[in-house]
Amino acid sequence: MKRKIRMGMVGGGPGAFIGAVHRAAARLDGKIDLVCGAFSSSHEKGLKTSNELFLPENRCYPDYETMFEYENDLPESERIDCVAIVTPNHTHFDIAMKALENGFHVICDKPMTVNLTQAKALAEKVKATGLIFCLTHNYTAYPMIKQAKAMIESGEIGEIRKVITEYPQGWLASAIEDTNKQAGWRVDPAKTGISCCMADIGSHAENLTEYISGLKITELCADLGTFVLGRNLDDDGSVLLRFDNGARGIIFASQIATGEENALKIRIYGTRGAIEWAQESPETLRLKYNDKPRQLLRRGWSGAEVANELSRLPAGHPEGFIEAFANIYSAFANAIIARVDFDDKFIPDFPSVDDGVRGVAFIEAVVAS
Amino acid sequence: MKRKIRMGMVGGGPGAFIGAVHRAAARLDGKIDLVCGAFSSSHEKGLKTSNELFLPENRCYPDYETMFEYENDLPESERIDCVAIVTPNHTHFDIAMKALENGFHVICDKPMTVNLTQAKALAEKVKATGLIFCLTHNYTAYPMIKQAKAMIESGEIGEIRKVITEYPQGWLASAIEDTNKQAGWRVDPAKTGISCCMADIGSHAENLTEYISGLKITELCADLGTFVLGRNLDDDGSVLLRFDNGARGIIFASQIATGEENALKIRIYGTRGAIEWAQESPETLRLKYNDKPRQLLRRGWSGAEVANELSRLPAGHPEGFIEAFANIYSAFANAIIARVDFDDKFIPDFPSVDDGVRGVAFIEAVVAS
Amino acid sequence: MKRKIRMGMVGGGPGAFIGAVHRAAARLDGKIDLVCGAFSSSHEKGLKTSNELFLPENRCYPDYETMFEYENDLPESERIDCVAIVTPNHTHFDIAMKALENGFHVICDKPMTVNLTQAKALAEKVKATGLIFCLTHNYTAYPMIKQAKAMIESGEIGEIRKVITEYPQGWLASAIEDTNKQAGWRVDPAKTGISCCMADIGSHAENLTEYISGLKITELCADLGTFVLGRNLDDDGSVLLRFDNGARGIIFASQIATGEENALKIRIYGTRGAIEWAQESPETLRLKYNDKPRQLLRRGWSGAEVANELSRLPAGHPEGFIEAFANIYSAFANAIIARVDFDDKFIPDFPSVDDGVRGVAFIEAVVAS
Amino acid sequence: MKRKIRMGMVGGGPGAFIGAVHRAAARLDGKIDLVCGAFSSSHEKGLKTSNELFLPENRCYPDYETMFEYENDLPESERIDCVAIVTPNHTHFDIAMKALENGFHVICDKPMTVNLTQAKALAEKVKATGLIFCLTHNYTAYPMIKQAKAMIESGEIGEIRKVITEYPQGWLASAIEDTNKQAGWRVDPAKTGISCCMADIGSHAENLTEYISGLKITELCADLGTFVLGRNLDDDGSVLLRFDNGARGIIFASQIATGEENALKIRIYGTRGAIEWAQESPETLRLKYNDKPRQLLRRGWSGAEVANELSRLPAGHPEGFIEAFANIYSAFANAIIARVDFDDKFIPDFPSVDDGVRGVAFIEAVVAS
Repeated sequence: MKRKIRMGMVGGGPGAFIGAVHRAAARLDGKIDLVCGAFSSSHEKGLKTSNELFLPENRCYPDYETMFEYENDLPESERIDCVAIVTPNHTHFDIAMKALENGFHVICDKPMTVNLTQAKALAEKVKATGLIFCLTHNYTAYPMIKQAKAMIESGEIGEIRKVITEYPQGWLASAIEDTNKQAGWRVDPAKTGISCCMADIGSHAENLTEYISGLKITELCADLGTFVLGRNLDDDGSVLLRFDNGARGIIFASQIATGEENALKIRIYGTRGAIEWAQESPETLRLKYNDKPRQLLRRGWSGAEVANELSRLPAGHPEGFIEAFANIYSAFANAIIARVDFDDKFIPDFPSVDDGVRGVAFIEAVVAS
Repeated sequence: MKRKIRMGMVGGGPGAFIGAVHRAAARLDGKIDLVCGAFSSSHEKGLKTSNELFLPENRCYPDYETMFEYENDLPESERIDCVAIVTPNHTHFDIAMKALENGFHVICDKPMTVNLTQAKALAEKVKATGLIFCLTHNYTAYPMIKQAKAMIESGEIGEIRKVITEYPQGWLASAIEDTNKQAGWRVDPAKTGISCCMADIGSHAENLTEYISGLKITELCADLGTFVLGRNLDDDGSVLLRFDNGARGIIFASQIATGEENALKIRIYGTRGAIEWAQESPETLRLKYNDKPRQLLRRGWSGAEVANELSRLPAGHPEGFIEAFANIYSAFANAIIARVDFDDKFIPDFPSVDDGVRGVAFIEAVVAS
Repeated sequence: MKRKIRMGMVGGGPGAFIGAVHRAAARLDGKIDLVCGAFSSSHEKGLKTSNELFLPENRCYPDYETMFEYENDLPESERIDCVAIVTPNHTHFDIAMKALENGFHVICDKPMTVNLTQAKALAEKVKATGLIFCLTHNYTAYPMIKQAKAMIESGEIGEIRKVITEYPQGWLASAIEDTNKQAGWRVDPAKTGISCCMADIGSHAENLTEYISGLKITELCADLGTFVLGRNLDDDGSVLLRFDNGARGIIFASQIATGEENALKIRIYGTRGAIEWAQESPETLRLKYNDKPRQLLRRGWSGAEVANELSRLPAGHPEGFIEAFANIYSAFANAIIARVDFDDKFIPDFPSVDDGVRGVAFIEAVVAS
Repeated sequence: MKRKIRMGMVGGGPGAFIGAVHRAAARLDGKIDLVCGAFSSSHEKGLKTSNELFLPENRCYPDYETMFEYENDLPESERIDCVAIVTPNHTHFDIAMKALENGFHVICDKPMTVNLTQAKALAEKVKATGLIFCLTHNYTAYPMIKQAKAMIESGEIGEIRKVITEYPQGWLASAIEDTNKQAGWRVDPAKTGISCCMADIGSHAENLTEYISGLKITELCADLGTFVLGRNLDDDGSVLLRFDNGARGIIFASQIATGEENALKIRIYGTRGAIEWAQESPETLRLKYNDKPRQLLRRGWSGAEVANELSRLPAGHPEGFIEAFANIYSAFANAIIARVDFDDKFIPDFPSVDDGVRGVAFIEAVVAS
């Protein structure tokens, strides 16, 4: 492929957090050009974003339907290859379905949809169209997560017995939803679906747990709570887990854990050792054993060869959230390039529509419990 | 009081871990003299310990009944004031009852008894005799735990919403019980009762949770597991909790968490802030807030006045497990001194027989769940 | 300004580390387009890089003189605005002088030149041309460094008494220079000048020390060493410092500190408090006081308002080295935009040619000591 | 030996810090009984301490000369074996000389004397009398320091190249000496000698550096400063070092490092690896290598066998400052017991009078520099 991938974005207008992250992640490796967008339901706001991005005005569209239609009429040498969906949860399904119908590959924020029916329908559509669909469960793309997954697969810690995944945040500890746009839609059942905390961050915890351990959750028992008065959805939850190999576990997620930032952490205990990773210091795996000293395995260093493949910098030069997110975008871009170049040996390495289905199923099971 | 307290010990012979800890803790502040003991069911082994302690042979007794009888026949100026019980769980009840019947104050290892019936009977006896009974839930005696409790009482973190207490250890990850004496009795239902992991360390977690938070557990849902083949008792457990103020929580304890040492840790989230303490670095409280920077409150430093009252050393001179244990012994000694000196204003500050009853009730509830 | 800045690069061909960092940093915020380059002294290698960057072949130049000449002949709407210099130290001077002579703004890697005569001549040229010159002392662009600088200026820690800046690395602990290109030119006096360790990383330490403290080094006493046999330049050094306010300090840099990654760290002690920052966990300032608890001030959180201005992500979403580097590029781009837009109120915030002169003077003084 | 060692103490009256530490350390292992003392130059204050220690009044002496005379007249079965000297620096020499003349073994606080002449005379006396002399450079008795020393001796990190030892404290950052007794004598040349900071804590840093590395300092270049107005002695100092094997190093000690507690830390870099230890978390060695992951070697765990010999508790049960200090006392007691028992194969393991001479020589050299 002799050119960059061309991408359009739906959502990500003024005040959005995740849209800017998607754009930075898409830019970082120089494989993707954002060439158009329907950034906001307000066309004026959309234009503001578009101008800030130095995009031509005629490719700032008032809505996604228009974008898909016009882009499809452009010559192949200008037309977008793919669409990034960064809108609130309840709109993902319609936008993604339409994008696929128009022949565009899709990269979509999580949770994929607001219910399992939608999720399954979307998975059907992806299979039917043969197009590439990527879900931005970005935490799985940290180099040291890939390293941990590889080490677990290779037997480093033996058979897994216990998994503890926690995800405390504090930002929703008081009723900020009236003034904070990000909080507003997340606690609104009309926009976010049947769950706030478990859908927004619990689903990341679930995805990371299954990804890194290679296990599947088979049973669960949940205790969801709403601590801030006036909310209609959970802002805290704890879940006891059983896995398909007999292991047990806990997922604990909270948005009322005052003072916590974004403290996703996973600990996996096996018969021979344990692996621990914390998102706020993502470049280190803590390895623990009963019969030898603890190890701090660091990105960029000897022993972290899998992670080093996914690194842009030497050890001691911190990489973070955007770099991990960019790994998702890079893998997505590589998949499109492979498709364009007819490379049928390419194996995609990013969260798929099936991961999205499992995530929505987890949310429904937790709420039902 | 013009003299040291005189103490006898039951248990603590060769190979015992906790007996030596009790002795060092009793010695540290110079208030207590260990003057006799029934250290082992083997009198030969008992004499070995007795000699190592420079005790006269005639006060090394073959069993606790003999010890209590002979000591009671000694003149008051030589007779022991109190008894330390450091034997396996199943013997605590008989020894404690007999000690109380002989008029000796008692300091006893936890869990107090192997069932609730015994626990309640012992509590009755303590009340009936009016003697002093102290349970060595030693973790509550760390200076920074007292500091945290005081800060929570004063409203520093607002109303408590969530408590996460974890206690992972790795030492029982394989079947060491055939060769390790400490492991042997702990996994033997005849000696340890209805639970291994939850009784041995889960009960510490429960005691610390209620102590520091000032809350009472009202409901629970537990998932206990046995991972090592051939064991008859739990070696891992997770418990979802509800508290009397509406807060929720998790207690997770494990003895198969490979590579963990003694990683008791508690996090308490309130409406205004959060407090975090970890036993392996016991001199620091981590305080977290949504509206200001995190604080590291350190023993010996400004802001830790409650802890500093219980300190022997300035900041930066690490105190640890024995020092905390010695705080229990010191408080126990102070209570006896107050009794001898007819000081009726003295308020004891150590875990009581009632804490012991709650602990045994917790173990029974968890196993029943 | 309605368009992105256009940039050409000198250096950064296959195998280069810092060239790729500059490119990623330039891309991250979407303000700069890399449109051409003279990436390697081998045109074949240059083309390889150029193709990977999806650049047109006719803007991959065989050398920087050709690049400057051809670009200057392009219409203003296509011509580059600025040049990034990412070559070994000994070439910086000639390239920068030529770029300035051709009217291009310059962003240059450090140390600026290999001797003070060159450094001063370059500073003269920058002043004479009135063009923008930016030196990539990237560590000063971490958000929490700006935060620390602002807090020190506001008197948070009182009058500064002692500054300890350390920069241990381990990668040159053995004689890897025969096989490692990055090591090769750094230990070669012909390419790197009179110093290896102190020029490569000691100058970062010096720059950061003066930047964050607001002090100037007035006296120094150095002990440079060469530990690996066969080297002609220092691979380790320690320097005692005096500052213009009477404060004292230490700079310690090493490339033979086995096992260290990139452990730049600074501690500043004042009469009222202390501030500590470590590059490998760059999002936290540790604040210490004699009269109150320690604080962990985190990027994105309350109390870190200066840092938050320079952040792309909320608290707990790690930003790292590339993000800090991108802050330099963004400030450089903003300065060019201000120039183009005739905004004469704009105050540039990046390391200047004068910082470069001080850095080279420091290296010469340390080697002379 | 069938009895405990009997000890008398000089110093350690009301308000003293280190006297209480010595007593707790002497008590911890149950090998030593404190039976008498000359605790204060005020006999009234001495009696207060004596009563608190439950000692008989007739063994609370008004001064050390009286104590030595009376004790020497007691029958051998009651007489003290040894003397602990815990007074300000300037009195150590006279007391120690007199104790040795009276035939008592001596354990003495550091620095040993206030000048080198005294130090050498004392060393002569120790040799002449053949009595046991122990200097409480307590930091060398931490189990993980012994572990590190053994690992370095065995070649774990190869040939040593660089040693960085730092000891920042903040407690003298303001002029507290008028109201704080501990500060008062330390900044008074009449009581402390020619140096405050370097004598009080710099000498610990020097002793630890040579002890753990096995190297000897051969050259130094120092920069001592006095930051608090009105002081006549140094409260801060930095020293560049050369060692007898060609290695280089830094010792940095400060008592005006605002906010620091007792942050003694040592880092040793060798050709194959590095070892790092920090007194405030004394149970962990950080091991770093260029060719494998970092290790956290923990007291009580596999791989720390040397440390485990010196441990009282299993891993994860924190031991601290008093425990390390007690290791000195225990080794001192063992040496006396070996002497009494005519065990001529016993090898003492504690800081000797020769270490004391080197320490005083270091202080003089640093002040002279």
